[in-house]
Parts: sequence; C-alpha cells; structure tokens
Amino acid sequence: MKAPDFTLTAGPTPASARTLNALGSQLVYHLDPTFIETFRRTTEKAQAFFRTTNDMLLLQGEGILGLEGAARSLTRPGMHVLNLVQGIYGKGMGQWLESYGCVLHEIEVAYDSAVDPDDVDAYLTAHPEIELVTIVHSETPSGTLSDCSRLGPIARRHGALTLVDALSSIGGSPFEADAWELDVCISGGQKCLGGPVGITMASVSPAAWERILSNENAPRYSYLSLIDWKVAWLENGTFPFTPSVTDVMGLEAALDAMLEEGIENSIARHAHAAAVTRAGVRAMGLELWPVSDEISGNPITAVRVPDGIVHTELSAHIRERYGVMLSTGSSAGNIIHIAHMGPTATGLYPIVGLTALGSGLRDLGVDVDLGAGVEAAMAVLSAGPVGAR
Amino acid sequence: MKAPDFTLTAGPTPASARTLNALGSQLVYHLDPTFIETFRRTTEKAQAFFRTTNDMLLLQGEGILGLEGAARSLTRPGMHVLNLVQGIYGKGMGQWLESYGCVLHEIEVAYDSAVDPDDVDAYLTAHPEIELVTIVHSETPSGTLSDCSRLGPIARRHGALTLVDALSSIGGSPFEADAWELDVCISGGQKCLGGPVGITMASVSPAAWERILSNENAPRYSYLSLIDWKVAWLENGTFPFTPSVTDVMGLEAALDAMLEEGIENSIARHAHAAAVTRAGVRAMGLELWPVSDEISGNPITAVRVPDGIVHTELSAHIRERYGVMLSTGSSAGNIIHIAHMGPTATGLYPIVGLTALGSGLRDLGVDVDLGAGVEAAMAVLSAGPVGAR
Amino acid sequence: MKAPDFTLTAGPTPASARTLNALGSQLVYHLDPTFIETFRRTTEKAQAFFRTTNDMLLLQGEGILGLEGAARSLTRPGMHVLNLVQGIYGKGMGQWLESYGCVLHEIEVAYDSAVDPDDVDAYLTAHPEIELVTIVHSETPSGTLSDCSRLGPIARRHGALTLVDALSSIGGSPFEADAWELDVCISGGQKCLGGPVGITMASVSPAAWERILSNENAPRYSYLSLIDWKVAWLENGTFPFTPSVTDVMGLEAALDAMLEEGIENSIARHAHAAAVTRAGVRAMGLELWPVSDEISGNPITAVRVPDGIVHTELSAHIRERYGVMLSTGSSAGNIIHIAHMGPTATGLYPIVGLTALGSGLRDLGVDVDLGAGVEAAMAVLSAGPVGAR
Amino acid sequence: MKAPDFTLTAGPTPASARTLNALGSQLVYHLDPTFIETFRRTTEKAQAFFRTTNDMLLLQGEGILGLEGAARSLTRPGMHVLNLVQGIYGKGMGQWLESYGCVLHEIEVAYDSAVDPDDVDAYLTAHPEIELVTIVHSETPSGTLSDCSRLGPIARRHGALTLVDALSSIGGSPFEADAWELDVCISGGQKCLGGPVGITMASVSPAAWERILSNENAPRYSYLSLIDWKVAWLENGTFPFTPSVTDVMGLEAALDAMLEEGIENSIARHAHAAAVTRAGVRAMGLELWPVSDEISGNPITAVRVPDGIVHTELSAHIRERYGVMLSTGSSAGNIIHIAHMGPTATGLYPIVGLTALGSGLRDLGVDVDLGAGVEAAMAVLSAGPVGAR
Repeated sequence: MKAPDFTLTAGPTPASARTLNALGSQLVYHLDPTFIETFRRTTEKAQAFFRTTNDMLLLQGEGILGLEGAARSLTRPGMHVLNLVQGIYGKGMGQWLESYGCVLHEIEVAYDSAVDPDDVDAYLTAHPEIELVTIVHSETPSGTLSDCSRLGPIARRHGALTLVDALSSIGGSPFEADAWELDVCISGGQKCLGGPVGITMASVSPAAWERILSNENAPRYSYLSLIDWKVAWLENGTFPFTPSVTDVMGLEAALDAMLEEGIENSIARHAHAAAVTRAGVRAMGLELWPVSDEISGNPITAVRVPDGIVHTELSAHIRERYGVMLSTGSSAGNIIHIAHMGPTATGLYPIVGLTALGSGLRDLGVDVDLGAGVEAAMAVLSAGPVGAR
Repeated sequence: MKAPDFTLTAGPTPASARTLNALGSQLVYHLDPTFIETFRRTTEKAQAFFRTTNDMLLLQGEGILGLEGAARSLTRPGMHVLNLVQGIYGKGMGQWLESYGCVLHEIEVAYDSAVDPDDVDAYLTAHPEIELVTIVHSETPSGTLSDCSRLGPIARRHGALTLVDALSSIGGSPFEADAWELDVCISGGQKCLGGPVGITMASVSPAAWERILSNENAPRYSYLSLIDWKVAWLENGTFPFTPSVTDVMGLEAALDAMLEEGIENSIARHAHAAAVTRAGVRAMGLELWPVSDEISGNPITAVRVPDGIVHTELSAHIRERYGVMLSTGSSAGNIIHIAHMGPTATGLYPIVGLTALGSGLRDLGVDVDLGAGVEAAMAVLSAGPVGAR
Repeated sequence: MKAPDFTLTAGPTPASARTLNALGSQLVYHLDPTFIETFRRTTEKAQAFFRTTNDMLLLQGEGILGLEGAARSLTRPGMHVLNLVQGIYGKGMGQWLESYGCVLHEIEVAYDSAVDPDDVDAYLTAHPEIELVTIVHSETPSGTLSDCSRLGPIARRHGALTLVDALSSIGGSPFEADAWELDVCISGGQKCLGGPVGITMASVSPAAWERILSNENAPRYSYLSLIDWKVAWLENGTFPFTPSVTDVMGLEAALDAMLEEGIENSIARHAHAAAVTRAGVRAMGLELWPVSDEISGNPITAVRVPDGIVHTELSAHIRERYGVMLSTGSSAGNIIHIAHMGPTATGLYPIVGLTALGSGLRDLGVDVDLGAGVEAAMAVLSAGPVGAR
Repeated sequence: MKAPDFTLTAGPTPASARTLNALGSQLVYHLDPTFIETFRRTTEKAQAFFRTTNDMLLLQGEGILGLEGAARSLTRPGMHVLNLVQGIYGKGMGQWLESYGCVLHEIEVAYDSAVDPDDVDAYLTAHPEIELVTIVHSETPSGTLSDCSRLGPIARRHGALTLVDALSSIGGSPFEADAWELDVCISGGQKCLGGPVGITMASVSPAAWERILSNENAPRYSYLSLIDWKVAWLENGTFPFTPSVTDVMGLEAALDAMLEEGIENSIARHAHAAAVTRAGVRAMGLELWPVSDEISGNPITAVRVPDGIVHTELSAHIRERYGVMLSTGSSAGNIIHIAHMGPTATGLYPIVGLTALGSGLRDLGVDVDLGAGVEAAMAVLSAGPVGAR
C-alpha cells in the first residue's frame, strides 16, 4: 500500500517540515556540549508549554513511560488513591494502581461523559485518607476532557497530590499546570506538538518530589525512575543513560514552533478546526460521541459510528479507498476520529476528513449528506478568523 | 559553541544521509498499514543483523531499557545468577541482580582484561544451581570484548541461560546469536549501525521465553515488559503502546545499509579502521588500554590517558580546540576513545582522531610524536584493502 | 504569511519526500565519479520518460532555456518555420522566431481550442519551403493539448523537423517522442514529475542534430548551446560547465518514482484526478475553459473565471483565506486552475481544490453550489479504480 | 564506487545541514506570496554579501550564465575591451569577447602570477578608447587572485566599466563591490557559501545599467538577458520565467549562515585554513603553484604536481584509494587543489587534505614527508585563534 495522502489521527500526527528537519539532523554525542545545551533549552521550553515553573523531566520513551514511572514513583502498597475514570486510559490507570497494591477508589462515568468535579470534592471530603488523585485530562479515544481547572484546586485543598495524563491536550485545549495546582503532569511529543513519539515531558511539583524521594517503592536505577533523572540531570547536568538525541532535537523544534505561534493562538486554531469539523459532522447527519461540546477536547472530533459498522473496518476502508488515515476509539466505543491535531488543525484539512468519513460511510451503506456537511463546515470556516492564515 | 566538525565517539555516532532521511521522514500513524509493514520488515532485518531465527523485539527506548527489561524478566528472588564482570556495565548488572533479590555469583577481572571462558566453565561445574549467566559482550568504556563464541556454548552445556549485552559490538565485531547459542541478546541503533538511540533490539530464544512466561516476577503491563510485546506484536500484530515511528524508520534504514554492505564486510571495515588507529596510537608513543588486541573490540580504540591528565578534561579540550568529539572511559578508567564505529569506520577518519588526540595531549604537556603516528597509521591504511572504497 | 497548506498549481508542484530528500542530499563535486554516474543514469531515465532512444540532454536551467536553446539551434535567418499557436507559449515562440530572422508562418486558433492537424497538413502541402514546425504540446495556462500523435508524422512526411514544448504534459498526458516521430522535445522537472525547476530535459533526433551541427547560427560556447553539451557530455563524458548537482539528484529521484509507478499508471492517475475535478467544477455551476475535454490535458483543470472577477485577485483571495495556492491563466485568459499534477494527482486533493475555489468564488459574490460539486466529484472518485491507492 | 568521505574541492563544496535542509524544503509555487518574499530577502542578503548597494540579480543558472549574460549585455561589435588574463577563465573571456566582435586588448601573465595593476593603468592611459575591463578576481583552477581593490578605481578613473568574475572569492577572500568601484560582479552559490550550483548573483551599477539599456546587442527576451530580470523583477516584482525555487531557498540559507557568522569572520576562517594547509604542503616538500602567498586566494591551496605525474590521475587515485575528492587545475597547469572553501574551511579538514595528497603522491612514487607536513600544519593550527570554534 502507498503511504497515506493524509493522516488525520489522534497522534502520531504529521509533523511540520521544521520538526522533520530537526528529527533528521545529524546525530551528535549526547555529552557533546552542544547537545547538553539543546537538552537544557528543550527542558525550559517544555516548562513554558506546560505553563509551569516546576521541575521538568524529559523521559526517553512514549508517554506511557511517563505515566508508569510517575504512578510507581508516587504510590506504595496500602496507599489510598482516587482514580477518575471517564475512558479507557483512566480505567487502565486503576488496574496499574491495584497491581501496585494501592487501595483503589474510583469515580467512573460513561465514556462519553466527564467526571463532575463536585463529585470529586464530595468524595475527597468523605475520604480524607486519599493521598493521590489520578486524572486523565484528555481521554484520546473518546475525545473528552476532564475539568482539571477545578480538579487540581479541589485535590490540593484536600491535601491530595494529582497525577495528570495530559498527553493529547496541551497545546490544543487550555492547560495550566501551575494555575490549576497540578502536581505531576505528563505530555508527549506526538499529539498537539506534531512531534516525535519517543519522548515524554513530565512536570513534578515540589510536593510531589517530597513524596517521591521519601518513597521506598519509587523506582531507582531503572528506566522507570524519575529520581534517576532528578539526580543526574537536575542536580548534576548529566544523564542517567544515553538520551534519544534525535527525539530531543525533534521535540525542541516542535516546541519552538508552538511557542513562536503562541500557545493561545494554537489553542484557538485547534478550537476553530473543531468547530468547522463538528458543524460538518452534524450536517452530514452523524452524531458526535461526547455528550456535549463542553467536554470535547479541541484536537479530536470523536464521531459515533452508526450501528452495524465496526470502527476499525470503517477506518481501514477509508484508508484503502481514499488514502486518508483516521484513528478510532479503540475499546472505548464504536468511535471514529477526525482529528485536527498539530499541523493539520488548520485550513481545509477538516474538509478532507469530512469527505473521507462521509464517503466511507456511504460506501458501507449509510445515508450521509456529504454535500450538506461540506457546506456547513465551510460556512463556519469562512466566518472564522482570517488570522488563521 | 559550534556543532562538532567530527564525532568519533563510542555512540551515538554520526548517521549516514540515508538514515537521517529516514529519521526525518514524515510521521505516520502507528496503526497505518504501511507502518505495520515497516515494523515487521525491521524486525526481520534485526534478526538477520543478530544472525538469529529467535524472536526479535523492538523495544521503544535506549539499550538500557532492553537490559533492564530482560534482566527483570529472566530473574526472580533467590535465583542463582553468574555475572561476568570485566567493566562497568558488567558491574552495574550485578547491582541490578542483587537489587532484584538474586543470589549473585561473579567472576570479575581487571577492566582492561577479559574473563577467561575456562574459568566460567569451571565455575558453572562447581555451581550447578546457577540458572543464568549475564555477559557484556562489548564493554564500551574500556573497549574490550568477552568471548561469547565460547561462553554461550559453555552456559548452555551447563543448563544456564545467557543474557548478553551486545550494544556496541554487533556489526563491528563478529557476533552470532544462534551459532554461539545465546539466549537473550540486546543491541541498539546508535552504535555500529550509526542509527537512532531510542530503540533497542532484543532477541529471545524459546528457552528464554519459557523461563520468562513462567516467571511471576517478569514485568507485565509495563514499559519494561517483554511479555507485553510478545502478546501484542508477536502474537497479534499490534502494539502494546505507540511505538516510536521515527526511530523505527531510522533503524530500518540503518539495518538496510548494514545488510546491503554485508555484515562480514562491515566487520572487516571496522577491523581495518581499528588496525590503522592502533598503529597510529602506538607510534605516537601512547598506550592502548586493553591488555591485548585479541580482547579489543573493532569499533573502539581505547587509549590510556597519561598520568596527570584527566580523561574528561582532555576530551573537553580537544572538542573546544579542534572541533572533534571523543568519548571517554567514564568510571572504567582514565581512558579516551578514538572510535571508528558505524559510518566513520572508514578512510581517513582515524587520522582525524589521531591528530586531534595527539595535538590535544601535546597542548597539555605530553610529549607525543604526532608525525610518527600519522605515518604509521597511513602505512597500515595504504597497505589495506582497496575494496574498502 | 504562512506557507501554503496546499499547492495545487500548474507547476512548480509539491514534491514527494523522496524527491525532497534527493534535493537535500549532500553536494558532491561534479567530477566526482559518483556524480558522473548519477548524471548518466539520470539521462537514461529521462529517455525512458520521453519514450525515446534519441540523445537526451540535461540542460541546466528552467524549461525556457531548453526552448530557447533549441529554437536558436534549429533556425537561421530566412528559414521558413510554421509555428502553431493555441496559447501564449505558442505565441511567444513566434515572437522569438521572428526575432531570429525566420520567415514566420502561423496557424493560430482561439486559446481555448486546439490546432487541427488536418490544417497543418494542408498548410505544409501548400508551403513545402517550411523546414521546421514548432508546437506546444501542452499550453499550461489554458490547460489545452495539441495532438502531437498526428502532428509529428505529418511534419515528418513533409520533411519538416519538429520542436515540441512538452513541459507540462509528459507523465500526465500520453506522450511518445519516438512513436510520434518528434525531433526535439523539451520537458522539465517541476511539472508532472513533481521535481526541481532548475533543469530541463531535451531529446534530439539524429535529423535534428544534423541540422543543428550544420547551422552556423547555432549557439556554441554559450549557456544556450546544445552543441556544447553534445561535445562535452555525449562525446566525452564531461561537462561544459558545472552542472547543478542538486537539481540532477532531485530529477533522478523524481524520474525513479515515475518509472517505478509506470508512466501508464501515472497518466491514468492524472486522468482520474482530472475526471473527478471536472465533474465537481461542472456540478458547482462553473464552466471549463477548454472547448472540449478531448483537448484538455490531464494535469490541469482550467476553469473560466466568472465575469466581474479577475483571476489573479481570486487566486490571491483563496491563498490568503484558505491557504490553498491555485495558479491562473496569466495573459491567456481569465482562467483559474485546479491542478492535479505530480504528487497531488491523487485521492482527495481535488476536493481541496474544488472547495477552495468554490468558497473563494462565493466570498466574491458568485453563486456556487459547493455541496453539489463535492458530491459529483466524490461520485466519480468512488466509482474509480481502487488501484489508485 | 561509494560516495566520497570528504570533498575538498574548489566548488561545488559540501553544504551545511542548514543549507541542505533549505534545498530539501517543500517546493512552493513561484508566485506564492511567501516565495516572492523569499526571493526579495535573498536578493537583499546577496547585496550584503557583495558589500554593494547596486542592483542585484539572481540569475537562474550556474555562474557561467551570469558571465555570459553580462558580457553580452555590456558589449557590442567594434567596442574596445581590455581583458586581463592570468588563468584559463580570463583566457576564455577573451575568446568570448572576440566572438562578440569586440576589439580585444589583453594583458596576459603566466598562470601562476597576477596582472600588475600599474600595467593596467599604463595600458588604459595609452588606450583611452577602451570602454570595458574584464577581470577574473579569483582564478579558481590556479588559485590566484587579481587585485581588484586597485583595478576597480583604475578602470573607473579611465572611464571604463568593469566586469568581474568573483565566483570563488567572495566570502573567502576580501571583496568589496562598492568600495572597489566595480560595476558588474558575478558570484555563485557553490563556492565559499557552500550552497547550490544552479543560481548566480550579479550586481549591476547604475553606469553599467546605462550601458546595457542603451545597447542594442544586449540580450532581451532571452535566458541570457539581464534586462528581462530588471524589467520583471526590479521594476515589477515578478519573474521573466519560473525561477528555481529550490536553489533560491538554498542560497538564502547559505547567505544567512554567512551573514550570521560575519563576512570578516568567514574570511579569517578561510585565511587560517589556508595558512595551516600551506605550512603543511611546504613541510611535506611540495611546491605551491602561485608564485607568492600574496596573490593566493584564501579558499584554495593550489599545489604544483611533481613532474611525471598527471594531476587528474593523481586526483582519481586519491579519490579511489582514500575516499577524498580533490579538484585539479584543469588546463591551467599540472595542479592539484586542497580546497578549504565554505564549510570545510575549518578545524582538521586541512589535515585530511594533506594526508590524502601526501599519501597519494607517495603511492605514485614521490618522496613526501607526510609526518613533517602534519606536524607543520598542526603547529599553525594550534597557534591559531581559538575563536575558530
């Protein structure tokens, strides 16, 4: 099969030429003074991206490495943890926490919904023994957000730390690590940054460090260790092992582009692409997956796949027939995405996604008003900010 | 500081244009059918590189991830393990094994020497309770090899599995995973392949899988898990999490170049560059670190730094003054490398290394016969195979 | 202004990653043996692209260099030349011919039409003194073709040589230099090949060489000279001056992709994209520029801009508002293009072009049925060959 | 044959990663507003590079296009021109001038020497009918400079215009288009800029324009025309034909690097590399080609090939045996170059060149003291400015 003409997935997304050039840059030795400077600059730019002054670690693997490393570092057997579940990533965190021996508390809602912060407040009031709240800010497969702007302050007021999976939100939906009083936040390169997969950013608050450093169960001398990076990099300016030179250079370029654009502008760009896409989806006669736009993240439009059609088969058909790669809801539900994440959250890319999705559904026998979809989407697009250009 | 003119380090090494182009390729979604094909092809090419028909895993992080994942997967508290130590990576493996609760047996020699396989044979005869032998094939900081061609069969004869760190040897020094009867072998992209750092290749024999799958202590649902990759990739053709698209594409390109050149030709190229370099080092009046050429790996010439000079200061001076990055022996000893690893194991790159090292030492007050060094090196080079071109 | 999201112009077109990698390859010395081999291979691949066994020259500049060099090489003052005019490039050739002192004969038709080969046959019968027929195979600004499959044999039967501008047709519309008995054909990299601008391919038949070599007016020792390249390259394997290393490497990569796809497949791909686009244009209520589909080239859909709107203003508006670059008919008429040329002649790119054009016209007050346009285009696309993928 | 390990030629030279990234950038339409901005910026940067406020043209071909276009634009049959000849490029200019019908006056010296400006002054005094002086600032094959700092003012004082070939000098040797009162100056991308071959910069003074515009023989509507570019670009901000998008983007990147480094710093870097190389050549027992260092350009060390050895055979041997590409003196003499031009005019690259040359000569039977050569070169290098890093 040919390479796809268009990749409109919920990450990895296409990268800009600038990021690709950085990824294809000549490798340098990791202790070369220029690379150490690159690493330092990248760390600082990641802080700006998270809007935090907390310590920032660049972990050398996909986002799941950061989530596992942080979860293991923050927990110990017998510890009470409140895990918020509104999708499969939240569900998986609970399974991890149980396997680490934590006493698991969960607030779970349907995967097209969002946990109500008031319920969390009430739960924490009822359970003062809870020391940690684990949150997925953006449930990628279902395209929903949780309200971290309230969850962070609630947890802190109750004396609990927070661990936040913000892989697919930062840069596309509003996110404020410090203003929202979040302790450990994890994000990755391959989502709204349009960058490399193999690197994870993790911010750690002083309170979180205090917990981690005093935790005998926190990984040490391990690929999973946050402490190793604190000792090596933060305290001594060197590395616990060879970092992925390529991914660091790619991440810096992607962060540069983000910060030069301005995070607010990037969020607005994602929001506009979402509005265009969602108008089109509705006008085609399809249904969005999240119960409301308020809980929908900007970078992903999650669409309910009509009964009788399996999301992965739909996606495979569209890829083969139209050269467009769309991602799906995985086990979260019968969902297909039109993502507008990173470099494709602009211009006519949503039209490509709408046309591919509408035509693919039609090929499988669904009655879709493609023309109306394009018309509705273009009406929103044409009314939008010219400044997007 | 400017980027280095030359990187002659023991990894990361410079990459070829072909590999850099692959690293800078447009990102695709990891479930795109073309990427799944790329992943499968890369896996098969890695098998050819290891000379094995065993299962091959592409783990998504630096080599140390593979070593930790394998060590944790193969061991359990109370298990007897023989760890061979001839350098700092061997030493570190022993510390890991102890922390995992293993009963640690060690044969340790000076870091400029190699463990004698006969001693291993004798030790295993005396200790039939040993279930695993952990070996570093190439001790990168000290530039020495262990004789895995004998160690593998000895261990197997005694019913022990082997775990082999072959990060910096495959492709530069002879290595035969199957012919040498090695069970779990780990290598990386950033050494003789001249490829990306962020990916590790791990071969696993059927006997090793049997041990791992029956081991309750083996990591599961973890970034460290080999089992997760077996279940997801080997058995179901999918991924336990998003693999690093960039690194996989870069690794395939580097493997392609290696296999097209021919592994034997690549080894001969590295051996010739080593001979050129070592003739030059000796003629300059300097001393090689390993006690003999027989135990020296082809990709790295480890040079004893004269007394009174600190290896890292020497390296920093050369980098600043001559634009050449040389790596050092780290805590293994007062060692500096001229590496001829990957794309720089050819032509006049050794002359650059010799000139930089000789001039750097001179600047720090050491009497070095630079002219004689270049003459001796060129004598070997000129007498060598024209076919290198 | 940001870089365009989409470039759907009649050349330069976007290049594939493979071609871009070649353009970004490290420069080598032009007399390096590897470059001489590259140049030789590229020449042979260009012959396959033209479907010719005639000599092939790679001239070091944009297509106009080849046209001027060939026109000057083939003509002398007082020579009778028949120039076929169905667009502005044909018109310009006539002005050149006059300035070179030729006796100019012209058959001119409206720029939305094509010269009738029967008229040429009759003219040549009436004017046996004509020694050369100059033809534009593809009039890029107006998107029309002339019928070289008949014009070539007609001219040869009358003993006249042919000079053919095939810049924007080869690879997208059928073209056969030898089967059609064409003497001097000129094409470029930046059209259906999706390659570099700075290089021109020129095929020269034995009969044309005979004319050129005996022509005292043919440029010699000049950037315009074909003879210099014959003497230097064809006869001596060297260059009259330094060729553009970058452009040659880029052209080879673009030719490789074309020949691996198969020229027939490439033509079919362009034809299908044209059918999709033209169905959409008509259903939107717009009018195609050429009087019939039969004389329309596959790579460009030329659309008549509605009265009251100026093509360049429309194009500028679309570029600014929607991030899509469309080219225009220049002085050939009030024409805007949706090009599907080179790498964009596939999949949903035509939908992008249709949506951009329709919305842009609407913004300027034209009543366009965008939804109907997309529906009609997708109907053709969905009915088309799956093999396009 | 493999690609060269090192290219140390007098152009094309290796390009920096930054320039290669620009050359490999996605093609855009030449009338895209971003490209028009790129073209304008590049023009201004070329002015800074020439140190001129005169008009700057970016001609779309190799340097010879600029020289021919300028020579044809400035001359007419019967016009008296003084051509200064100290090498083969000067000689070739004379042949052109004669073929254009000029009355040719020449001052010619041996090709290892430089024309004495006083002789030019005297000649112009004796021949007030001379309207143009044609000068090669840097005779690439023989590595010599002419003294344009004096020739320019002399010519102007005598009322003659100057046409200067500065292809291989600007950026490496001092050059001042305005301060030296030079009228038309030509340079290219592939020399000290380490950039693309396919583009030429030409500065034109008001007096030169006056001559050109009033010259009926100046090319118009031609690839050779300067006037076409003046009318299209300078007066109307558009192009006479499609410019080579790739080459323009590559040239801008190369100019950016030059201007950010600072032209003075670049010249100092080239001068230092020349001093290193020449010390090495002499200490090896070889002879430099130019009669004095004063007339030697910084970017090229031209070495006299010992009797009995043919320069091209020597170069071919070194390329094959050592992977180093060196250029030769062509028909200017039995000369081989170690060039230190562009990105390789730094650090240990001269050592690579010296070792390759010395070893190659030795292989062919010449007694060369390679060790002494490297020692002498490193003595100069180590004593040099640290700031080179």
